[in-house]
Amino acid sequence: MSHRKLRMGMIGGGPGSFIGAVHRIAANMDGQIELVAGSFSSQPEKSRQAGQELYLPEERVYSSYEEMFEKENQLPEDQRIDFVSIVTPNHVHFDPALKALKSGFHVVLDKPMTLTYDEAKELNRVIEETGLLFCLTHTYTGYPMIKEARQLVINGVLGKIRKIYVEYPQGWLWKSFDTSENKQAAWRTDPSKSGIAGCMGDIGTHAFNLAEYVSGLKLEKLCADLQATLEERVLDDDGSILLRFENGASGVLMASQVASGAENNIKIRIYGDLAGLEWQQDDANTLLLKYPEQPDRIYRAGANHAYLSSITRKNSRTPAGHPEGYLEAFANHYLNFAKTLQAKISNQDPDPDFLDFPGAEDGVRGMAFIENVVKSGKSDQKWTPFQL
Amino acid sequence: MSHRKLRMGMIGGGPGSFIGAVHRIAANMDGQIELVAGSFSSQPEKSRQAGQELYLPEERVYSSYEEMFEKENQLPEDQRIDFVSIVTPNHVHFDPALKALKSGFHVVLDKPMTLTYDEAKELNRVIEETGLLFCLTHTYTGYPMIKEARQLVINGVLGKIRKIYVEYPQGWLWKSFDTSENKQAAWRTDPSKSGIAGCMGDIGTHAFNLAEYVSGLKLEKLCADLQATLEERVLDDDGSILLRFENGASGVLMASQVASGAENNIKIRIYGDLAGLEWQQDDANTLLLKYPEQPDRIYRAGANHAYLSSITRKNSRTPAGHPEGYLEAFANHYLNFAKTLQAKISNQDPDPDFLDFPGAEDGVRGMAFIENVVKSGKSDQKWTPFQL
Amino acid sequence: MSHRKLRMGMIGGGPGSFIGAVHRIAANMDGQIELVAGSFSSQPEKSRQAGQELYLPEERVYSSYEEMFEKENQLPEDQRIDFVSIVTPNHVHFDPALKALKSGFHVVLDKPMTLTYDEAKELNRVIEETGLLFCLTHTYTGYPMIKEARQLVINGVLGKIRKIYVEYPQGWLWKSFDTSENKQAAWRTDPSKSGIAGCMGDIGTHAFNLAEYVSGLKLEKLCADLQATLEERVLDDDGSILLRFENGASGVLMASQVASGAENNIKIRIYGDLAGLEWQQDDANTLLLKYPEQPDRIYRAGANHAYLSSITRKNSRTPAGHPEGYLEAFANHYLNFAKTLQAKISNQDPDPDFLDFPGAEDGVRGMAFIENVVKSGKSDQKWTPFQL
Amino acid sequence: MSHRKLRMGMIGGGPGSFIGAVHRIAANMDGQIELVAGSFSSQPEKSRQAGQELYLPEERVYSSYEEMFEKENQLPEDQRIDFVSIVTPNHVHFDPALKALKSGFHVVLDKPMTLTYDEAKELNRVIEETGLLFCLTHTYTGYPMIKEARQLVINGVLGKIRKIYVEYPQGWLWKSFDTSENKQAAWRTDPSKSGIAGCMGDIGTHAFNLAEYVSGLKLEKLCADLQATLEERVLDDDGSILLRFENGASGVLMASQVASGAENNIKIRIYGDLAGLEWQQDDANTLLLKYPEQPDRIYRAGANHAYLSSITRKNSRTPAGHPEGYLEAFANHYLNFAKTLQAKISNQDPDPDFLDFPGAEDGVRGMAFIENVVKSGKSDQKWTPFQL
Repeated sequence: MSHRKLRMGMIGGGPGSFIGAVHRIAANMDGQIELVAGSFSSQPEKSRQAGQELYLPEERVYSSYEEMFEKENQLPEDQRIDFVSIVTPNHVHFDPALKALKSGFHVVLDKPMTLTYDEAKELNRVIEETGLLFCLTHTYTGYPMIKEARQLVINGVLGKIRKIYVEYPQGWLWKSFDTSENKQAAWRTDPSKSGIAGCMGDIGTHAFNLAEYVSGLKLEKLCADLQATLEERVLDDDGSILLRFENGASGVLMASQVASGAENNIKIRIYGDLAGLEWQQDDANTLLLKYPEQPDRIYRAGANHAYLSSITRKNSRTPAGHPEGYLEAFANHYLNFAKTLQAKISNQDPDPDFLDFPGAEDGVRGMAFIENVVKSGKSDQKWTPFQL
Repeated sequence: MSHRKLRMGMIGGGPGSFIGAVHRIAANMDGQIELVAGSFSSQPEKSRQAGQELYLPEERVYSSYEEMFEKENQLPEDQRIDFVSIVTPNHVHFDPALKALKSGFHVVLDKPMTLTYDEAKELNRVIEETGLLFCLTHTYTGYPMIKEARQLVINGVLGKIRKIYVEYPQGWLWKSFDTSENKQAAWRTDPSKSGIAGCMGDIGTHAFNLAEYVSGLKLEKLCADLQATLEERVLDDDGSILLRFENGASGVLMASQVASGAENNIKIRIYGDLAGLEWQQDDANTLLLKYPEQPDRIYRAGANHAYLSSITRKNSRTPAGHPEGYLEAFANHYLNFAKTLQAKISNQDPDPDFLDFPGAEDGVRGMAFIENVVKSGKSDQKWTPFQL
Repeated sequence: MSHRKLRMGMIGGGPGSFIGAVHRIAANMDGQIELVAGSFSSQPEKSRQAGQELYLPEERVYSSYEEMFEKENQLPEDQRIDFVSIVTPNHVHFDPALKALKSGFHVVLDKPMTLTYDEAKELNRVIEETGLLFCLTHTYTGYPMIKEARQLVINGVLGKIRKIYVEYPQGWLWKSFDTSENKQAAWRTDPSKSGIAGCMGDIGTHAFNLAEYVSGLKLEKLCADLQATLEERVLDDDGSILLRFENGASGVLMASQVASGAENNIKIRIYGDLAGLEWQQDDANTLLLKYPEQPDRIYRAGANHAYLSSITRKNSRTPAGHPEGYLEAFANHYLNFAKTLQAKISNQDPDPDFLDFPGAEDGVRGMAFIENVVKSGKSDQKWTPFQL
Repeated sequence: MSHRKLRMGMIGGGPGSFIGAVHRIAANMDGQIELVAGSFSSQPEKSRQAGQELYLPEERVYSSYEEMFEKENQLPEDQRIDFVSIVTPNHVHFDPALKALKSGFHVVLDKPMTLTYDEAKELNRVIEETGLLFCLTHTYTGYPMIKEARQLVINGVLGKIRKIYVEYPQGWLWKSFDTSENKQAAWRTDPSKSGIAGCMGDIGTHAFNLAEYVSGLKLEKLCADLQATLEERVLDDDGSILLRFENGASGVLMASQVASGAENNIKIRIYGDLAGLEWQQDDANTLLLKYPEQPDRIYRAGANHAYLSSITRKNSRTPAGHPEGYLEAFANHYLNFAKTLQAKISNQDPDPDFLDFPGAEDGVRGMAFIENVVKSGKSDQKWTPFQL
């Protein structure tokens, strides 16, 4: 029995949203998902406008997500949405996700999972209870060469891991903004919308997730130095963290949103007792394998490269040398989620190569990371245990 | 009056096609186009299979493009396809394109335009006659930083252009292939399907198009050295060409498909009497401006960069540092084509920033390039004039 | 009155010494210094052998540095050495340096200054007392683009400094060595020869010195996480340190000698409230200036580049594009030291552009860094004040 | 029997000479050579001034090279110069080299060998006749990774060579110069001093030499397109050449001195039927090995890398990650020349790893290259045979 195209409803992502547009492109790209409904803004007029620009029929554009859940569930099963994609600011993650699940819809949710750690635990409970699929879009683990990196670690190529450096330098909050003009800056620097962390919630969680994903190691304790660089800032806009992992490996996580001139070059380096690896977003199709007494090797993304793992190749759309980027990494999460959901709907066994997308555990750990980082940041003690 | 989503029918792109999948991703990405019909293979069973995998209704999957044109024209205007996307090998470009135009459908066509130069001129005549839109997918001019490069030349930043180096080194035809197993290699090395040139038709035309696009200069004469490196090859699999442009600028075009280990790093360097520029696909989001007595400058793609031209920014989907790649460059041609076609359908003036996609003139010049390169390759004379 | 070539005596640097050969090349390069004497090993036979290989007359090759100081002082003034270059392991820094000074010879000394902080303070006292010239070869501040970086900071191009990342990843101590075969590894992992720190003394001090040199800021407090990764190691072979500088800027220093596959790519990034800069040894002739809303700029080393500071240009030997490297950076310290010493000898005012070489203050601060890092590494408190 | 330090006399290299200073640094660096005499300018006063700045005794600074040859030969054998280093403009190469040889002195000569091809043949004859050592300083073959590249070709790693791209883009002659102020530009654009070629003599010969050196192939025919870009130029300041080598391999040589903003990034790429290699001066310590179906490999310069050939390692002074550059490459020619000459003087067999420096054959072929390029540039025929 063959699969069918999945139907998506979107929550948030109205005029001016950066991440909403990214989610739509990612969902569109591979032709497995169709946007059929949405509640794009808490202001009904804006939602309507967004729906029109997205060529949706008027009756599938809703004034609230509650309305969407209700009305969609009144539609025949072969028309109603299969899942929702939630792309709102952090403080509007928990409620729509919870209600979507309780209304029987699978969920794709932008990170971080929720506004608070408690919400994350509760959401996780409901996900487990309902048995519905849940994907948290930690973009960077969608990159094919990050998947390859993880496979190389699993296959023992690096040996025992000793050292993890992960960094995410940005500069876009380098100066004061008129927050009425810069919505992105406005909500991210507002604790009521962003949560207890700024930079660490927004991008630190990505770096943390990437480190644990590639290394396969769990963080054990940490020592954080957080900054609110600009006087007006209530939340951290920069921070550096010493890390210790469960196997004794040490590391450093650096994240900044005030590194003037830096763009978005998230980078990870992991060193084991046999070899090391390096990857950075600015050269995303390259993974560098470093050896102590041999030439380094350049692994390159490409659906055609037999030396790459099958997972890596299935997360590539083109042969080597046709650069794929951020949007394709994002789309890989949607593709993996879609393939898994299609199999579920068809009562088939999913292709194991497509099961790899971030989920509730990543979300809960991410929220715990925020909790622990903020706690450590305030502590005079060097080490704060990573508590779940 | 608002626009509507466009309906696309595809010709070719069945199982195993590389470029068909690329076209579909490019068409899907921005949510302006919906694939609603197709004739995906000359073998009806394969076409049907492709249609099913693409979630098309059976009745919109056709056994031939002739059938598609006829049946689609019998559908109500608000259901029938607006345009076709033709992604077949070169020898199946002319006929479907011609018939599509004569059936009233706009056309997106993979490059090179046709099998022969005469076909290209005839197709061009029909395009002009019908007044329908035509887009030829020379991928690389879709890159935002290539559009920026062109704007910088137009704005005089480089001064008078002196020198153009353009290169396209590939290695994928480095050895003999069992052509029954490698379809891509099979048709590209077969003159009946590829035309009178191999490497020069497949990738040399891209390099030529890129050079003329960025520089704004027309080629005046050329001196080609073509190779059929492997004994079994009938067509060139490698070549280098000395170039002279209309303003006296000189240049070199290098293309190879037997450069063992090379991937796909098309690169252009242009030097004027004030400054130079460099761009290569492996670092596609960077454009390097080189100055004789000042620090070089790194222009970076990004919808947010106010220093970039408005055209460049509209061909970017993300802020700087979120790498876009080959698929986005491809999608830009579809997006520009779509926006222009939507305006045409709505009887509106198109946004001038979206008029920039390769068309019939590029196609005719590309076919003339092939003619002239092959002629020069056989000549004992140094210079062969570029004849249209 | 013109200058004269300076006469150098070397202490250490016998067979198998890496850094001895580097010092000789650096001293030779610019033709301002002649090696005329030496005590190359504590084993007289090895010293003799080294002297012979270096084409020195037998009578100027000594069995001990004490002998060298005594005998050289018996030579006529126009033959005797002007200064000594001390290139022994750390535990043989203090005594020869002290005795050289007390014998009236200027001193060039490899880093770190001494085995202990107390020795450093004492040596510093004697340097001040004697008024003799002292150069400590912190290689990396000899790079022209590092000098340019410092000038840019001084000139306010970066604005107020917020963030300093400095890293020095090496992998050469990645595994256990037979220390009878690997002399470099042997003494560096032995506290009696290396001091209380391993990695932090060997390369952490370089990173620290580089950060303070370029930023012009003094470290105020720190939080160190040190590792002795291999079981056999007594001293740290890896460490990461959170930093806070006197103006409130924060930072991170990472150094490792067990980062398998890493070579020697010391790197510094500094972000101010106006702009940022990046430099790394693997691309030593490039300094990247990063701006929030303008294209980044590539500053390139080159004696011909008028946009560079005069200090930078005088520390370059070739026009842009002729890469200078590690040995030239090292030679710049010798050149600056030599020019300053020549002026002193001639009772002339030295060229201020050549006064810039690391000296006693760098040495004392480097030893204090080691003290404070080790102290912080053992502490449960997050912050350890940087105490002099 | 041990070696001794060699004594060098220099011809040319007075005030304002770029290449004279480079030769001196290169000769100094390894402590095998001492500059003891010189005739630094045709103007005695300038020669004297240079000698003084170089700390030479007055009596060893000569007014003419003829005087130097005569007077040096009157000195005792253990004081007189062993060889001369000639660093004058092209039109003053033949005469001093010839007279040096005839006076019994070995010769190091800057490239190109002579002003004319006939001079080169005559000089070659005299070199053979006298049996004296001769080194022509084609800098780029002194780079360790270029030596490694040659070894990899010799060892068959690339298989049969198919394609050679070599390029040398410079921009320093991008505009008109007041030649009274810019001596470098003045003589290089003057046929009476530079010879029949400008750019092709100055840097094209380097690219040609590099291509033949690494590939081990001899050029068979060529097709040149030369430009005198600026109206005032008599000689070429730019050119591109199609190449065919003896084994059928094809190639392209590009050289320019008017590529505005380009520095000096000479680059070579060679593709065989098994693998390809890439090297460029801007990343001189890296050699990229490219494989069709495996990860590429990064070979890195370093005296410690056991995977490198013994020749490569002996031409490196430091372990991997301590970048060596242009001056070290230059110094390698002096070092190899010196080691060979020391062996000759000592009647010992030279170390075969140090025999590798460019000599008379390179010089004669370089001059033939100039002849043939200029001839081809004027020809209407596509191919001009490479005639010796």
